[in-house]
Amino acid sequence: MSMIDIITKKKLGQALSQAEIAEFTRGAADGSIPDYQLAALLMAIRLNGMTAQETTDLTLAMRDSGDVCDLSAIPGVKVDKHSTGGVGDTTTLVLAPLVAACGVPVAKMSGRGLGHTGGTLDKMESIAGLSVSLTEEQFVRQVNEIGLAVIGQTASLAPADKTLYALRDVTATVDSLPLIASSIMSKKLASGADAIVLDVKTGSGALMETVEDAIGLAKAMAEIGHLSGKPVHAIVTGMDQPLGTHVGNALEVKEAIEVLSGKVKGDLLEVALLLGSHMLVLGGRAADTASARAMLTAALDSGAGLEKLRAMIAAQGGNAACVDDVQLLPQPALIREVKAGCSGYIAAMDTEALGYAAQAMGAGRVQKTDVIDYSVGYILPVRIGDKITEDATLCTLYARSEADAVKAEAAIRAAITIGNAPAERPPLWYAVVTADGVERFA
Amino acid sequence: MSMIDIITKKKLGQALSQAEIAEFTRGAADGSIPDYQLAALLMAIRLNGMTAQETTDLTLAMRDSGDVCDLSAIPGVKVDKHSTGGVGDTTTLVLAPLVAACGVPVAKMSGRGLGHTGGTLDKMESIAGLSVSLTEEQFVRQVNEIGLAVIGQTASLAPADKTLYALRDVTATVDSLPLIASSIMSKKLASGADAIVLDVKTGSGALMETVEDAIGLAKAMAEIGHLSGKPVHAIVTGMDQPLGTHVGNALEVKEAIEVLSGKVKGDLLEVALLLGSHMLVLGGRAADTASARAMLTAALDSGAGLEKLRAMIAAQGGNAACVDDVQLLPQPALIREVKAGCSGYIAAMDTEALGYAAQAMGAGRVQKTDVIDYSVGYILPVRIGDKITEDATLCTLYARSEADAVKAEAAIRAAITIGNAPAERPPLWYAVVTADGVERFA
Repeated sequence: MSMIDIITKKKLGQALSQAEIAEFTRGAADGSIPDYQLAALLMAIRLNGMTAQETTDLTLAMRDSGDVCDLSAIPGVKVDKHSTGGVGDTTTLVLAPLVAACGVPVAKMSGRGLGHTGGTLDKMESIAGLSVSLTEEQFVRQVNEIGLAVIGQTASLAPADKTLYALRDVTATVDSLPLIASSIMSKKLASGADAIVLDVKTGSGALMETVEDAIGLAKAMAEIGHLSGKPVHAIVTGMDQPLGTHVGNALEVKEAIEVLSGKVKGDLLEVALLLGSHMLVLGGRAADTASARAMLTAALDSGAGLEKLRAMIAAQGGNAACVDDVQLLPQPALIREVKAGCSGYIAAMDTEALGYAAQAMGAGRVQKTDVIDYSVGYILPVRIGDKITEDATLCTLYARSEADAVKAEAAIRAAITIGNAPAERPPLWYAVVTADGVERFA
Repeated sequence: MSMIDIITKKKLGQALSQAEIAEFTRGAADGSIPDYQLAALLMAIRLNGMTAQETTDLTLAMRDSGDVCDLSAIPGVKVDKHSTGGVGDTTTLVLAPLVAACGVPVAKMSGRGLGHTGGTLDKMESIAGLSVSLTEEQFVRQVNEIGLAVIGQTASLAPADKTLYALRDVTATVDSLPLIASSIMSKKLASGADAIVLDVKTGSGALMETVEDAIGLAKAMAEIGHLSGKPVHAIVTGMDQPLGTHVGNALEVKEAIEVLSGKVKGDLLEVALLLGSHMLVLGGRAADTASARAMLTAALDSGAGLEKLRAMIAAQGGNAACVDDVQLLPQPALIREVKAGCSGYIAAMDTEALGYAAQAMGAGRVQKTDVIDYSVGYILPVRIGDKITEDATLCTLYARSEADAVKAEAAIRAAITIGNAPAERPPLWYAVVTADGVERFA
């Protein structure tokens, strides 16, 4: 079959066969199909959609377009976790050590962030000496030795997805549910996961702005998991405000350490416990999420989680002393406290704008080649619903320069709405989606 | 504005502004917008459409992307004519001399065929010595001297259309009404026409298979003409069988000569007279199509039309003696008569398949670089509705080899349905579409 026939079929709204999907995926991976034909097909998919079977076929074809990680040398069920991305969202650094401390092996491959702030890899690299580039052999050995490793995806992981993802970015075809779902799932399956917990964000700082859109994406991914024999629990969580109070790379490592040390509670911990408890259930270590949560809380309280983080940092060559002294993490040129300046209630946040404020400070990449400044960002102690006074701290800026601090303060003030009337706190999570259906909480 | 914003807008089904259309058209012409972004936009246009205003803006932007021919040195209204293309459709070579003989200057730029058979240029080049490459100055002088010139489009005519057309061909976005309409009209307007007669074909051998689709395209082009101040008459004519009896390049020149000599009547002449009469009306030489037809018939009967063809061939360096002796046109290796082999009524023809049969004989290009054999093709004396006997001539093949003749005979037989019941002749034309509306005849 020719690529024109494949494009024509999708243009007419017909479902593509497994062979047709394999054909264009192979061409995307090996470069034999020109970008303009892939671009036309991506737009046709964006506008005419894909069935669950097509989406699964695309996922598996992309998975098989490169190396598939073999984790069979690690005993037990390998449960991966993925977030669609948010601001102040450092759940991986909190939950991975806790889950590992409970006996479920965490062999996690992460991507780099091209967004408001860095991804998990960038955050980890803010720790002096730490490497996220391990061979598959080193990766497996580390997981078998300490139960935990978080590394970068190899270049040969799902190359078809790399081609299509890069094209989507420049052809306005990012916002396609089957393309988002298959892109995420192909990488998770290629990195060898037996089961997957997905954190699908919704709200002003998320890819999926509405709860219904987020549930739609969650269902699409749970369906791919079902059709490909890998159990998926997809949790729809809120991103109407940053999840943690810290936004920035070293700052988020600091917050993870403080949470694992038991010094800080709050939304980041709550979401980490929720996602982690689903990992324990899928990993076969707990019968239900309630008992799983109890196990995770015990690992937190005993300090076992923090010890797992320390062990991982040390195993990957990082300066583990930062776990005891967060001052060892990169420090900015300037730290400045910003006062609220008026009293009232925190009514709303434009989370996306808050993310861009951090990015503008140097915490995230605008282009792939940008170098991240690990030290910058801000701490935002206020949450939606909080009553504040004029002299309350609105935020604490970690900036490279006076000019950056001035710009960041203005951007953060603009992104936060302070009202006169009491405001309700938005839900932390909305739904859990599995192959069995949707369970809604809010 | 960025190209991604433009693609996004069309993806969401919104109308693009004149500035946005000018932006991407400029980028298509100068190569500054990558093919993959243009391809995504073309698919979004194919699936979400364009308003009449957008289509007109695109037409004018493509016209202005290159040289616009200045025909002001030619007195009178310059009326161009364009056909969406069919099999055995050599109306230009019949009507252009007749229209010129009636005093309306015909300054026509044609494209090359990439289809079943060659385009008008290829047919003309089958005449020994004839050149279709004139400078603009030579072109204008010839029209002022003899009232008639048919030449090739310059390379600098509507370069944005060239880019987009080539991309549409390989991205399954050919079948978009606004893209077809704007492509045709941009080239007609760039070649300097004051008014345009369009022959929109419908039927088994046409781009628009149904009458309603053809009327839709005719309306879109009439609307562009209206919005850009250039009157357009679009005639929807039938392509359920080849228009003339001759299919092939030299063969179609031969048929045009025989029609202009008064030796042959039939559908080709009828459609040529219809289109030509609209040209006389738009050119201001006749008050209505009835009196225009009378003028054209007089030019035919007096031989003035044939003399114009002779003058044009001579002016463009061709051997005009072929007008008196069609044997001077390229002759094939082999001429073979094929008998019907059964009796009955000609019930239907697959005109597209008949076109491909000619192409396979060497009369048309599969790829741009293919060299056409002017001598080959076939004469098909039968028409739908004809009653035939077993020993009637079904066709006469003009082939390069025995093998080609065998294949062509099989293809032609397969494309013609002979039934037992009398069959009706399909209408020659269905509608005339102008800015004032649609007048239907069938």
